Amino acid sequence: MIKRIEDYREIVGDEVIHEIFKKAIKFAHKHVVHINSTYQGGGVAEILTSLVALMNDVGIFAGWRVLHGSPDFFAITKKFHNALQGDQINLTAMKKEIYQEQNEYFSRFTHLNHDLVIVHDPQPLPMIRFYRKRQPWVWRCHVDLSNPNPELWDYLKRFILRYDMVVVSHENYKKKDLPVAQRVVYPSIDPLSAKNKPLDKNTIKKYLNKFGIPNGKPIITQISRFDKWKDPEGVLKVFELVKKEVDCRLVLCGNLATDDPEGRKIFERIAQKARNMNDVILILEENNILVNALQSSAAVVLQKSLREGFGLTVTEALWKGRPVVASNVGGIPLQIIDGRTGFLVDPGDIEGCARKVVQLLKDPELGRMLGENGRAHVRENFLVTRSLLDYLDIMSELLC
Amino acid sequence: MIKRIEDYREIVGDEVIHEIFKKAIKFAHKHVVHINSTYQGGGVAEILTSLVALMNDVGIFAGWRVLHGSPDFFAITKKFHNALQGDQINLTAMKKEIYQEQNEYFSRFTHLNHDLVIVHDPQPLPMIRFYRKRQPWVWRCHVDLSNPNPELWDYLKRFILRYDMVVVSHENYKKKDLPVAQRVVYPSIDPLSAKNKPLDKNTIKKYLNKFGIPNGKPIITQISRFDKWKDPEGVLKVFELVKKEVDCRLVLCGNLATDDPEGRKIFERIAQKARNMNDVILILEENNILVNALQSSAAVVLQKSLREGFGLTVTEALWKGRPVVASNVGGIPLQIIDGRTGFLVDPGDIEGCARKVVQLLKDPELGRMLGENGRAHVRENFLVTRSLLDYLDIMSELLC
Repeated sequence: MIKRIEDYREIVGDEVIHEIFKKAIKFAHKHVVHINSTYQGGGVAEILTSLVALMNDVGIFAGWRVLHGSPDFFAITKKFHNALQGDQINLTAMKKEIYQEQNEYFSRFTHLNHDLVIVHDPQPLPMIRFYRKRQPWVWRCHVDLSNPNPELWDYLKRFILRYDMVVVSHENYKKKDLPVAQRVVYPSIDPLSAKNKPLDKNTIKKYLNKFGIPNGKPIITQISRFDKWKDPEGVLKVFELVKKEVDCRLVLCGNLATDDPEGRKIFERIAQKARNMNDVILILEENNILVNALQSSAAVVLQKSLREGFGLTVTEALWKGRPVVASNVGGIPLQIIDGRTGFLVDPGDIEGCARKVVQLLKDPELGRMLGENGRAHVRENFLVTRSLLDYLDIMSELLC
Repeated sequence: MIKRIEDYREIVGDEVIHEIFKKAIKFAHKHVVHINSTYQGGGVAEILTSLVALMNDVGIFAGWRVLHGSPDFFAITKKFHNALQGDQINLTAMKKEIYQEQNEYFSRFTHLNHDLVIVHDPQPLPMIRFYRKRQPWVWRCHVDLSNPNPELWDYLKRFILRYDMVVVSHENYKKKDLPVAQRVVYPSIDPLSAKNKPLDKNTIKKYLNKFGIPNGKPIITQISRFDKWKDPEGVLKVFELVKKEVDCRLVLCGNLATDDPEGRKIFERIAQKARNMNDVILILEENNILVNALQSSAAVVLQKSLREGFGLTVTEALWKGRPVVASNVGGIPLQIIDGRTGFLVDPGDIEGCARKVVQLLKDPELGRMLGENGRAHVRENFLVTRSLLDYLDIMSELLC
């Protein structure tokens, strides 16, 4: 459960392991604190679970604090999140007040004597305003910032300008109108987590069985919340076309965001359509080992998103050496080099997507080759050890 | 939203306010940290919300950390909680391992350089084992310890023996077999919180209306989870007897513990019975202002529990000057002095309970007198300012 750097030796090699310790020694006994707004659910919590443990293992006192938010507060920050990605928002004085007050409340009993403070995402962004600064602060934004709602962006800038560095997930998310130093750190996965560690064949079989997935036909899968931006309806259309050419099975697996009333409607519409189709299985559970089993055994993994911050489900599938067909949006093209580590398709092109899936089903050798390249690409760029090195570089820049 | 000590002047008087500052000056700039396992829901989170803010306001650096628990971990600690109150438990090696590992995991990134550590309830109890001690540790147990499951108690003692003090909520919860110093601190309510602050008549009317409670008849209410220990079925029986004598209305208001499959069954049984009765209203929402409105306007407040740690809902009702009829169990007799600050009844005595309710409905002057005494009793003993003074005394004992 408690990971140590050397557990990753076999995966990343001894050079990387020693490079980490070499960079880290400058920061032995330094105090760093990460602040976000949840310790479970979602990619940020997953990354921090691994990253914070590893930071401590190299000798840094790395803490992790979770903002205490009320339901009202989270309803507002959810709206902020969507508006940062371009949605409309009615930015009332009341919303701003609740947003700032919750941060002020939390700051009163959160005493930060650390050498470096790293704030993740918009929820705890205003905290900085309630401290007499005594160390550099980094705002690590995991959201797609390429097209934010202008009114909200202008409001949030009043907090961002107090920071010493902004870290985003993609070169395109850097903001021209921001005088603050900006860096890119790619999101990452932990190859030793329950979702990503190698599973033996029996465990895979057991889990597929447990969740009612028969064997005997090749599996196409998409792991994603039932959300309009993940285009589950498009996936059904793709599957219909594929099924005419090759007998196979589709598994859609994902949870409903509990705070998203739209999600349930979308799920019900999909379930309705799936009832009239053969070999479509919907799973509403989020079980890490099941996700791992599906990604490890699928003939093709789909990610037909219409929009995508980074797309860690793509990273996970590539890491398992599976061939992936995914939309050319957000962070996906960083991961999929078309024809080399998978196939990119236009998000609107149902037929093109189906053609690629059929090609992969008919040519397993091609799939094996793409998968192998994909795995190597993830090893090089998107593992937690890589993120740790990036953070050590940021610490060098800010603390040395 | 952010409370200061002097906000309580009108309620507790200038003497108490200054006594707090006088005791606190010794600890100005001392670092204290509270650790529990949730920042919302339940009495402990409510107390900490107020207590931690006030501790900071007197000059102490008081922090509040929330243990990061997995669903598995919380399923186990829920069983521990029930077994500490006497239930059976199958105490497997696996349960102990998950319990301890989660604590070890959390301790890795929770760096405690404080002068005093206060751990609340069993969830973070084992943390102490994963530190080189550099300060006194207090285990503040909010659970009824009078009759714990012996096997579990023996297992937990291995951690408790490392502590410098144990604080319980009732003289009867002290343990003879524990060589650790033991103190009693009563739980408390915050008279300025949304649940307890004075509401004007219009707000009360608005909220009762919003939740479908008509006016025109006197209201009897019980605010409690739908849980067998709160005896909602007993409440229906009492109401049936009362209704024969005085025309009135019953409101049962409480949520379902989401992790309690029993709760839903109990609620459905109650709902089924209520359908065949007149003037019974069930509300499944936990809205602080609604609870406040109900407690502030009820003719009689019931608390017919079969078992009760302390019974903060009784404290809340007494604070609003309402007449309360409650079972003679747990911490309730600390609050209700029979015939003076309310009426105590035997938990099995439906008829006796109904008689007291009828008496109060027929004699509002008696209710007014009991309510007045009850409010004075709470002011003296069960407000957050009192708890703050108790914690300052504990700090004196451990740090001076």
